[in-house]
Amino acid sequence: MQTLIWKTLSPAQQADVLTRPALNDEADIGAVVKEIIAAVRSRGDEALRELSLRFERAPREQLRVSETEIEAACGRLDDDIKDAIKAAIANIRTFHAAQAQPVVRVETQPGVVCELRTQPISRVGLYVPGGSAPLPSTVMMLAIPAAIAGCREVVLCTPSPASDEILFAARACGVEKVFAIGGAQAIAAMAYGTQTIPKVDKIFGPGNAYVTEAKGQVSRDWRGAAIDMPAGPSEVLVIADESANPAFVAADLLSQAEHGPDSQVVLVTTSPLLADAIAGEIKRQLAQLSRREIAAKALGSSLVILCDTLDEACAISNAYAPEHLIVQTQAPRELLDQLENAGSIFLGQWTPESVGDYASGTNHTLPTYGYARTCSSLGLADYQRRYTVQELSERGIQGLGPIVERIAQAEGLDGHKNAVTLRLNALQKERT
Amino acid sequence: MQTLIWKTLSPAQQADVLTRPALNDEADIGAVVKEIIAAVRSRGDEALRELSLRFERAPREQLRVSETEIEAACGRLDDDIKDAIKAAIANIRTFHAAQAQPVVRVETQPGVVCELRTQPISRVGLYVPGGSAPLPSTVMMLAIPAAIAGCREVVLCTPSPASDEILFAARACGVEKVFAIGGAQAIAAMAYGTQTIPKVDKIFGPGNAYVTEAKGQVSRDWRGAAIDMPAGPSEVLVIADESANPAFVAADLLSQAEHGPDSQVVLVTTSPLLADAIAGEIKRQLAQLSRREIAAKALGSSLVILCDTLDEACAISNAYAPEHLIVQTQAPRELLDQLENAGSIFLGQWTPESVGDYASGTNHTLPTYGYARTCSSLGLADYQRRYTVQELSERGIQGLGPIVERIAQAEGLDGHKNAVTLRLNALQKERT
Repeated sequence: MQTLIWKTLSPAQQADVLTRPALNDEADIGAVVKEIIAAVRSRGDEALRELSLRFERAPREQLRVSETEIEAACGRLDDDIKDAIKAAIANIRTFHAAQAQPVVRVETQPGVVCELRTQPISRVGLYVPGGSAPLPSTVMMLAIPAAIAGCREVVLCTPSPASDEILFAARACGVEKVFAIGGAQAIAAMAYGTQTIPKVDKIFGPGNAYVTEAKGQVSRDWRGAAIDMPAGPSEVLVIADESANPAFVAADLLSQAEHGPDSQVVLVTTSPLLADAIAGEIKRQLAQLSRREIAAKALGSSLVILCDTLDEACAISNAYAPEHLIVQTQAPRELLDQLENAGSIFLGQWTPESVGDYASGTNHTLPTYGYARTCSSLGLADYQRRYTVQELSERGIQGLGPIVERIAQAEGLDGHKNAVTLRLNALQKERT
Repeated sequence: MQTLIWKTLSPAQQADVLTRPALNDEADIGAVVKEIIAAVRSRGDEALRELSLRFERAPREQLRVSETEIEAACGRLDDDIKDAIKAAIANIRTFHAAQAQPVVRVETQPGVVCELRTQPISRVGLYVPGGSAPLPSTVMMLAIPAAIAGCREVVLCTPSPASDEILFAARACGVEKVFAIGGAQAIAAMAYGTQTIPKVDKIFGPGNAYVTEAKGQVSRDWRGAAIDMPAGPSEVLVIADESANPAFVAADLLSQAEHGPDSQVVLVTTSPLLADAIAGEIKRQLAQLSRREIAAKALGSSLVILCDTLDEACAISNAYAPEHLIVQTQAPRELLDQLENAGSIFLGQWTPESVGDYASGTNHTLPTYGYARTCSSLGLADYQRRYTVQELSERGIQGLGPIVERIAQAEGLDGHKNAVTLRLNALQKERT
């Protein structure tokens, strides 16, 4: 970890330090994905089966995972992991259900009623990556808000073979249609539909560079599908003062570092002593991790920033806009009002990032790579659309009409004005 | 207007009828805009001044509109238009202020507190097109929610000369920084910042094909800026039964048609008699509009769909996903629960679209081109970010810890598990 003393840096150096490294832009990924999407759009399931043979660890003829297969998977799992998943689901459900918004109804002036309503997005697609380890947590984070929102169709794609944990979590979250297909082809199938995979309106979930590129391409085509948010490597920033437990902070930094070699890990502290103690702890704990090589790579490009005050630490965090922000200080909640641009905030020594990754109830799908400045943490709202309704009474149009006429006139839109004038005239005539 | 009888069409024909026409994709727009963005990024204000000379009706050296200029503009305006704008602002402010969300705070299990909070996006940019008529309504719709959200920096760009109405509306909505520069160069300036125009995090507002392309390009660059929503031609769908007033419906269709030659206008009715009467009214009213040539062009590609029941009419509207949906039936509110995918809904004969365009209180920035299936009507939420906070007590981590450990183990992430185990061990030791 590189250690920097904040006040010795120029403003330009400070900005530079907090700039994310450029992502590997492999030029050919775009072209490969374009071809895959075109194949799936033109040949549907047939293309998916061919791509399954080329890319899946366990290629399948039958894309949909059957009830029998899901039953068998659930039967194979130990009770303790099932119970843990169920407990996590209960918390995530509680927190996301609490996000439901009532109708906003306002009479803005007499007889002019305006409403803001929400509605589920009809059809959603969830992508759950495969790879070295099964990710039942991704299933929970994506599927639970879809169920609470009441999306009519929920489709889940995951590379083949789908793990028992993923199938169990899908079943427990009420996902009915699971397809064992991964990669860009899965995104294409959900965006445009095939004979067996239904077209959806919006696609959620993480993935590798091909999946990310495919999500980008289908979201730029109006016949395709919307997506949850832009992707980037996972990241954490920890603000710690001299009261922090160095072993805890080290463990939190390592749990981020083990995600991948491109994970971003930043420690901002007012205490050089603490920074030293954390470095020692990291060395000690790292040796015991199974993913120590990955974590060591991520730590190679990580940062320790020494600053003078916690106000300064907050400003540094705000400028960086971290996906995860852990605050281990004497009085962490007191800093909350000055913390901006973080995806999810973890307060105090008993709140490691991993509780939010799995089971506290918050969503682990968060904006990264600086997108936290404008994007929100995934929640119920992302599975809904907000729309407005208005209804005017006779009194309403009589009061509002002349205002509308005057502005329409200023904008040179006669037709807009006429739609009001006709109505005002009709009411005038009625009364005389 | 082309008239179709819904039940005589095959499902494929029905789908085809409701598909929007492809947008004119002028290939060189992308390249031109790319060049403009590159110029603004590398040479800042100097590039803006050169582009102003090439493209603005009133090129300026001084990009920022001064206080003196704004004062003078306000002084030139008649009181009646100022009063109309103020009345509209009051309604829009009332409705958008009512959209504020309280903090959601839930204890998902003992000692595990999760919160969903909102925060203003720090810096926003508003684009207000120039062209043939001034659009003070666009200023109101974009600037009022920014002020309510509490965005720290609000920047407005509009082509030069900025109209008096636009400057008055900007002042009345509390926008402090107005720049008289338009086009792709204005979008580039707000996305990346120049010597005089501040960089923003998110850009809002409509524009021509160059502005739209520029918004697309800067939103795909993580160093650029987020944008409000995808753009497309404006559109209305009217559901009417035999009780509807043909003159009112005709006026509503025409007020949409006058927006532009590519405006989409669709009438869905259960009454062939009404359709005939509306056609006659359109002919009569069209002759009196100043923008009749534009409206006539839009009507040339518009549709009348005859169907048997209002349920069927709703299903057609849901499949089309209109930006504006006007319902002129005997009991319009009864249809509300089955109406999906509309940007904004106008209920009953006294609620023409133009009230929502200007002054009822709802926002006129709405998803079009089918994006209403997943995008929301613009509102306070678009100027805010949602983020989560969690805080566990000792009891919280003791209860939740084992669940997190078990799932981390299933996902093969030791580091995640260790961050919890260390804490559980520390608590164990404390107690013994």
